[in-house]
Amino acid sequence: MRLAVRVAATYELQDESFGCLMVEPALGGERHRVVEERLTTSPIRLCELGRDFYGNPRRQFVAPKGRFAFEFSATVEVEPNAEIPADAVEHPPQELPPEVLIYTLPSRYCESDVLSRMAQSEFGGLAPGAGQVRAIADWVREHVEYRYGTTGPTTSARATAIDRVGVCRDFAHLVIAFCRSLEIPARYVSGYALELEPPDFHGYVQVFMGGAWHAVDATFAGLRPALVPIAVGRDAADVAMMTLWTPHEVVEQSVEVRRVDA
Amino acid sequence: MRLAVRVAATYELQDESFGCLMVEPALGGERHRVVEERLTTSPIRLCELGRDFYGNPRRQFVAPKGRFAFEFSATVEVEPNAEIPADAVEHPPQELPPEVLIYTLPSRYCESDVLSRMAQSEFGGLAPGAGQVRAIADWVREHVEYRYGTTGPTTSARATAIDRVGVCRDFAHLVIAFCRSLEIPARYVSGYALELEPPDFHGYVQVFMGGAWHAVDATFAGLRPALVPIAVGRDAADVAMMTLWTPHEVVEQSVEVRRVDA
Amino acid sequence: MRLAVRVAATYELQDESFGCLMVEPALGGERHRVVEERLTTSPIRLCELGRDFYGNPRRQFVAPKGRFAFEFSATVEVEPNAEIPADAVEHPPQELPPEVLIYTLPSRYCESDVLSRMAQSEFGGLAPGAGQVRAIADWVREHVEYRYGTTGPTTSARATAIDRVGVCRDFAHLVIAFCRSLEIPARYVSGYALELEPPDFHGYVQVFMGGAWHAVDATFAGLRPALVPIAVGRDAADVAMMTLWTPHEVVEQSVEVRRVDA
Amino acid sequence: MRLAVRVAATYELQDESFGCLMVEPALGGERHRVVEERLTTSPIRLCELGRDFYGNPRRQFVAPKGRFAFEFSATVEVEPNAEIPADAVEHPPQELPPEVLIYTLPSRYCESDVLSRMAQSEFGGLAPGAGQVRAIADWVREHVEYRYGTTGPTTSARATAIDRVGVCRDFAHLVIAFCRSLEIPARYVSGYALELEPPDFHGYVQVFMGGAWHAVDATFAGLRPALVPIAVGRDAADVAMMTLWTPHEVVEQSVEVRRVDA
Repeated sequence: MRLAVRVAATYELQDESFGCLMVEPALGGERHRVVEERLTTSPIRLCELGRDFYGNPRRQFVAPKGRFAFEFSATVEVEPNAEIPADAVEHPPQELPPEVLIYTLPSRYCESDVLSRMAQSEFGGLAPGAGQVRAIADWVREHVEYRYGTTGPTTSARATAIDRVGVCRDFAHLVIAFCRSLEIPARYVSGYALELEPPDFHGYVQVFMGGAWHAVDATFAGLRPALVPIAVGRDAADVAMMTLWTPHEVVEQSVEVRRVDA
Repeated sequence: MRLAVRVAATYELQDESFGCLMVEPALGGERHRVVEERLTTSPIRLCELGRDFYGNPRRQFVAPKGRFAFEFSATVEVEPNAEIPADAVEHPPQELPPEVLIYTLPSRYCESDVLSRMAQSEFGGLAPGAGQVRAIADWVREHVEYRYGTTGPTTSARATAIDRVGVCRDFAHLVIAFCRSLEIPARYVSGYALELEPPDFHGYVQVFMGGAWHAVDATFAGLRPALVPIAVGRDAADVAMMTLWTPHEVVEQSVEVRRVDA
Repeated sequence: MRLAVRVAATYELQDESFGCLMVEPALGGERHRVVEERLTTSPIRLCELGRDFYGNPRRQFVAPKGRFAFEFSATVEVEPNAEIPADAVEHPPQELPPEVLIYTLPSRYCESDVLSRMAQSEFGGLAPGAGQVRAIADWVREHVEYRYGTTGPTTSARATAIDRVGVCRDFAHLVIAFCRSLEIPARYVSGYALELEPPDFHGYVQVFMGGAWHAVDATFAGLRPALVPIAVGRDAADVAMMTLWTPHEVVEQSVEVRRVDA
Repeated sequence: MRLAVRVAATYELQDESFGCLMVEPALGGERHRVVEERLTTSPIRLCELGRDFYGNPRRQFVAPKGRFAFEFSATVEVEPNAEIPADAVEHPPQELPPEVLIYTLPSRYCESDVLSRMAQSEFGGLAPGAGQVRAIADWVREHVEYRYGTTGPTTSARATAIDRVGVCRDFAHLVIAFCRSLEIPARYVSGYALELEPPDFHGYVQVFMGGAWHAVDATFAGLRPALVPIAVGRDAADVAMMTLWTPHEVVEQSVEVRRVDA
């Protein structure tokens, strides 16, 4: 299907600032293809397309003190989202390449080390594979209430396992932590999704199984129709949409994702 | 049945110190009666029997710098431990006297405020009453591994809900927190119990239901044969066996509880 | 000086509910005297004046489902707030009565057990007495930023010691925790204060020194001109202005404190 | 100077297990050179030298169920450890390459996001540069007590900032977190060091300043004479000496570091 995405934001910078922006759909995705995209910024023009440590593309810039704004829009052709194939197998660790193995380790917002006994207690009895991951996502959706404004940027899986309330970012962190506790490689994805209310960036999960990364989204019963990844990392700390190194205020921000099939 | 209990400990005090000792079975218990007891201390003699804020009896003393030792032994006639009666009803809050109502509030090691959604999610669907409390105790026993040396004096219910490992103190704190999250008055009891391995003081729970306090012990499948309360409080912070106000080392400590029926 | 206080609030109750209201100035205060007061409620009339476990007066009622409102106003003659006398001495623990000794123990939002080394490291070198308490209050005011909306009902001293931001409740909890870590009895007071912006209930501290409780308020440089206590407890968990046992919404709430000297 | 290092360990594996071992001094170090080294394992021979996600070399193997042992010894020529040059400058973020920039982000055991205000409050007033980093290391050494057995594998900087006790790993995590809070790139290093008591692996810090990584070791007043890095990562989660994917027990482990200058 075809999606139109649009993001716009305006910031008030208290000083000249370096910034990194990650809004463009991930390069080289097998399940999506950018048909056209446009990025405008003012007052400066984003001059440099770089990559972060994980290989995610990002725009780097230095903006002067004062008002800074950007607008990004794109049309993306995306395959319908798919379940993890029922026969996808969990790999033994010796088969995992280093860039996948790192996603079995605990990270800032996914404390799989302290959640290990809880994961074993809740999911350790299930057969490894796609069904176990689905059980984790179902558990999170059924035990955690989705509610805006209840969590913040420092909320982690350890807190969500107790507090049982949060938004997509928190759902994803808890799924990731449980997966890693069971030695299933899992990473955080920031991206675009249809049917978010209110419209916003989306955070979801990819697990590595059967030789490929598969999307898992615990905020949706069934299968979210489409997901367009922007960047991946160990958790949300690694994939902020915008990072500014100077004190600033967000004056305005909006995200739109629409289906635009012919 | 009849129990013989014996506690002895020796401390090395770095300075003259005030101390409070709570080892004597609670006064006025309906389910136990002290047949005989003996408390010896050296070098000083415990002169003062006081009561703490909750009414628990305790011995208060000032010991000189150096070695301090006590030995307490008692014979106690105790009724067999009993289940909460199946028809015990949960009281509406307006029926609770102030000294009971306080046991619905969160406390240092029983963070019922943050565990509220977890308690609702796991137990909120059950009918109020003895069965709900039993379900809580069963859940804790089944989901938390009993293992010595895994937790410490600052471990709280919030941690145990995640870490899923601990000792009797941790089991009790988690049961209390879940009960209070559901507005069931619950308090911490330090006491003596048969069949502890290794022998030690025991920590368990009392809930207020049907007009009386009833023992709940999540560390034991079924019903622990006998429990002799020493002191009650909001959690373990309130009922330390020994409090010394000066730096000191525990040189030696032992607890024995034996059945001595004729 | 003479203060006029007024509190009004309206709630929407989803069901018939038991409630406890604590807004009336504490009875028997040595430093304040209620000249006149008026409490109105609708639709029911508050029928019962009770006391909580700590002896604080409170109104208990059962309100029907739907809208419930109260309004309380009082004129209070209050002595100017005073510093802890410079010669007030810290008591050895053996001189503290049980109802004071309990305020040296950790509690839900004042984790003096885990803050013990931090307190020793920051304040352990100071001479015991009024100066040490003043140093604690100064440290908290200088290291913690006062900002509305940054903390919530489950924020505790352990978090504030790190996060370094909060409101009066958080300032009080951190002062209390540090004091208790140094074995100074300290309790939480909810009350009325002049010069709060925005107007609200106030949370501050009392420490026991020289045979009496003395007010400490880390949110104010110097000496807040007047403080009228409502209720005291181990921390904010014990002195909620309103407790309702049924799901409800706060429709409206306002607090006013004015000086009305003739 | 010349060091002889030796590590030996024996494990009892409950099943065939994949393992990763990181004990060899880092490749390409500018300040150390391996003169000779020997690694023996039984019953299997370590067949594969791989690299982790950060480029650290590691040995990967599959060991059968039962006893598994390794012994590693090396002679290393190492330059004396040096202070950060007094004129080393802190880089603006736009000058940092992606593989350095990632070390400004929070990680599992270095929660620089929640420690941000504390870092500002304690060190924000100091001039950026080598002196600020030294002030951080001095603060940690002076405020945190070094004591074996007080912390565990899940202890993080947030806890150490409060608890004020720990071992080298904890000291390093807190220094890293404070540095990142001030936007100084900082990473965790596992390595060998002289003068540890008891002998063990060492954890310390490297900060990026003046175009290079410089060692910082808050566990030592002055300058530890020699440090030999093994592996670097965001924190200790990334650089475990041994990772085994099967339940196992450590039967025996020893580390020796001696000076062997001719």
